[in-house]
Amino acid sequence: MTLILNNQNVRDLLAIEDVIDVLEFAYQELAEGRGALRRRSDTIVKSDTAPDAIYALKSMDGIAPSLGVSAIRINSDIITHPKVGENIRRVKVPAAPGNRYTGLVLLFSTETGEPLAIFPDGEVQPMRVAGTSALATKYLAKKGARSVALIGTGWQAQAQLRAIGSVHEIADFRVYSTQKENRDGFAMEWSEKLGTQIRPCDSAEEAVAGADIVLLATNSLEHVAREDWLEPGMHISSIKSPEIGAEVIERCDVAVCHVPHGRPTQEFGAGAVLPDTIGADIDTLTKRIGLDDMPTLADIVSGKAPGRTDDSQITCFLNILGLGYQFAAVGSVLYKKAKDAGVGNAIPTDWLTQIEVP
Amino acid sequence: MTLILNNQNVRDLLAIEDVIDVLEFAYQELAEGRGALRRRSDTIVKSDTAPDAIYALKSMDGIAPSLGVSAIRINSDIITHPKVGENIRRVKVPAAPGNRYTGLVLLFSTETGEPLAIFPDGEVQPMRVAGTSALATKYLAKKGARSVALIGTGWQAQAQLRAIGSVHEIADFRVYSTQKENRDGFAMEWSEKLGTQIRPCDSAEEAVAGADIVLLATNSLEHVAREDWLEPGMHISSIKSPEIGAEVIERCDVAVCHVPHGRPTQEFGAGAVLPDTIGADIDTLTKRIGLDDMPTLADIVSGKAPGRTDDSQITCFLNILGLGYQFAAVGSVLYKKAKDAGVGNAIPTDWLTQIEVP
Repeated sequence: MTLILNNQNVRDLLAIEDVIDVLEFAYQELAEGRGALRRRSDTIVKSDTAPDAIYALKSMDGIAPSLGVSAIRINSDIITHPKVGENIRRVKVPAAPGNRYTGLVLLFSTETGEPLAIFPDGEVQPMRVAGTSALATKYLAKKGARSVALIGTGWQAQAQLRAIGSVHEIADFRVYSTQKENRDGFAMEWSEKLGTQIRPCDSAEEAVAGADIVLLATNSLEHVAREDWLEPGMHISSIKSPEIGAEVIERCDVAVCHVPHGRPTQEFGAGAVLPDTIGADIDTLTKRIGLDDMPTLADIVSGKAPGRTDDSQITCFLNILGLGYQFAAVGSVLYKKAKDAGVGNAIPTDWLTQIEVP
Repeated sequence: MTLILNNQNVRDLLAIEDVIDVLEFAYQELAEGRGALRRRSDTIVKSDTAPDAIYALKSMDGIAPSLGVSAIRINSDIITHPKVGENIRRVKVPAAPGNRYTGLVLLFSTETGEPLAIFPDGEVQPMRVAGTSALATKYLAKKGARSVALIGTGWQAQAQLRAIGSVHEIADFRVYSTQKENRDGFAMEWSEKLGTQIRPCDSAEEAVAGADIVLLATNSLEHVAREDWLEPGMHISSIKSPEIGAEVIERCDVAVCHVPHGRPTQEFGAGAVLPDTIGADIDTLTKRIGLDDMPTLADIVSGKAPGRTDDSQITCFLNILGLGYQFAAVGSVLYKKAKDAGVGNAIPTDWLTQIEVP
């Protein structure tokens, strides 16, 4: 049987600790050459559903043979780019029946080739991003780190908050977002959920002052981090390329990236255009900083490159591009748990395999 | 509902004429820039299932907006490379439960993003290859072509035979394969199926002598076509890169390729190696002939480049690399027919979509 899981199954089954543990194992495998992956590709055409809309079919894949799985993550998106104030926003349209989005992960067995599971990417997505950021702090934040400044209050920020506490014993949480009501609401909600005080701050500077770990998880299209935030011993991480500019990265003693390549490969049909700003900052960063030469998280986890070597260093982690490989690793745990728990909709695997040689 | 179709559904629903018609429309769209596609990528690791085995996750995609669909074709294969005589063969292992293979096409709506259908690739695969070769003969074979030489007797050859008859009125069929029992058996079986005489030949030379159309559909790892086969007015096509070497292509007055790029992109894990011969001939061809500069089938179908301009020209078509775009085009017809006929296993589309923004 092939399991079809939904986001509620993922929430019920998958703990952030599972995600961090399996990612740590998987990056080790990757560094030692046993894994393989393909960076994301975007195939894009003009969409007639709205002015300036595009339709994009995106995919990325990875194989983690020691975990016995491969995965391909596929997004089938209608995307608009409305101008909000001075900024161009990237908005996915829930155009599927019931106002839904289409993002799928297909998990395959490397032993038999068969499809083991299919699940939506929505719940795993922030968990693998936050799990990866948290894993990086294990190697890059100073020992005994106890204070965290969280910049941003969206769903990625929430996941970052849940993840960091499973790696460090944090006694001092601060949060900042540009909207006062967002940071106050977030602090109230999550103080209760985590059973610990989260302090909303009136400025980013107030939030980051003296913080051991700064987690950026914004939706900003501009640089967020500033050079004068940096203090000896600080670790700062980003989940989106414009958040930390080259100036700040160059000030760090140790800078680590998630993936040693630039933005996804892109193929366009006629008339399909993306706003210049989307992705351009990754190109700038790649050019100026040389992501190719930067150690990756896999290098750090495996010991191929040193992480933090003393408590006064300033470290940074650029978690700005995802990997299908992460979905393979996390998918292996999810699948095992779902099978053990007997949850999910099962369909005959024969429906998805064949006797014909393809 | 999302339809899960099987190969029997494909055989029941899809006629080769449907395939040729929709491909003709789709190549026109592609030439006019309304389609988009991503070439095949292979992610490959060493497999522990057998010595010299690999596990490969392959995918390619395409979007045909005027047909309202996109598709990604995914293969999850265990492949061995046994030495048979002097040659290294590439053998897919049916390792999925029930000795089955895993090759899937996911068809999405470009209007809503939702998954419309999932179907195995085994039956569509030879139809889209043969449909493409047959479509090319419409533009490249001489008018009134009536004789066909088929070289090869495998499943691809069978599909080529079925397809060519729907584009030209063929009165004279010849077949050759290196094994006498294969060509005799094939001729007997298909003479009966097509209700017309197919002549088994004792040599390739005998088969191609005076033929208007030569269809190569072999499993050969070496060149098959020879310069001295070529006669004024002949059209020759190949489905596999070693079949026609550069010397033969250079002798043709009009040479057209299916896809203007070389072999798939490849990412390897440590210890995963492919025999040198696999794919090397495409590299040689790309280098020597310059596939980039050659007109594509889309160019010919749309009139951007001339096809055959007089009856004495020798033409050739290199149908040696496939496209996910073909699966999108053919999938659009298959889906519509399946829906109209009410066949296939339907699962709720909600199982494969989500309210969470991915």
